[in-house]
Amino acid sequence: MKPTHIEHIGIAVENLDEAIKYWENVMGLECYNVEEVADQKVKTAFFKIGDVKIELLEATSPESTIASFVEKRGAGVHHIAFAVENTDEALADAEAKGVRLIDKQARKGAENLNIGFLHPKSTLGVLTEFCCK
Amino acid sequence: MKPTHIEHIGIAVENLDEAIKYWENVMGLECYNVEEVADQKVKTAFFKIGDVKIELLEATSPESTIASFVEKRGAGVHHIAFAVENTDEALADAEAKGVRLIDKQARKGAENLNIGFLHPKSTLGVLTEFCCK
Repeated sequence: MKPTHIEHIGIAVENLDEAIKYWENVMGLECYNVEEVADQKVKTAFFKIGDVKIELLEATSPESTIASFVEKRGAGVHHIAFAVENTDEALADAEAKGVRLIDKQARKGAENLNIGFLHPKSTLGVLTEFCCK
Repeated sequence: MKPTHIEHIGIAVENLDEAIKYWENVMGLECYNVEEVADQKVKTAFFKIGDVKIELLEATSPESTIASFVEKRGAGVHHIAFAVENTDEALADAEAKGVRLIDKQARKGAENLNIGFLHPKSTLGVLTEFCCK
């Protein structure tokens, strides 16, 4: 398994509107999509830079994992998503190499990608997502 | 100011050798450079994926900012570096927009880049680096 590129960097924010303004006005990027992912209890906003997207995530419920992340650590980088050819195969490959999985099988995420997460306890602290179209 | 791409993602690690093995064996990337940056009291290792680099950082002294980051928050994503045409101009532009700077002027970083950091207190929690060749 070798990822082809970084699909996106997920960044937890407290207030999506304020964060969109920051990334547009200060960082000079353009928000091209805002989407609610009900399943994950988040509102997301996307920007493109080179072959990577920035995905801002605001919790829509205190039960969202983004809400607990922000409460514990503050806003900031939440996860890195690597584009792979097949998410299920990449998850199985990581598990075979001793990595603990959050998702045993791919599920649908924002932008209709097939996504699956590795547990940061076995990825040296980096919450890692695999994704494919 | 508009960055052209994400130059690298900086990841704080506790043990560089162990982390290089993880990124090579599990993530399938190849380490192409290991470098000590005495000035910043870190040892770094670089991987390339798409147009982005992964920069692993291990503290070489308890006084390194990487040491205090790992002590406070554990290993994980430390900063995101955006490639810009001119680091000094990008820093000045951010400051003019109300961002607090860590570096008022560019200094030399790993891989001989001209680098400068914005303060995460004014970048919504993302420690942000600008860099150019």
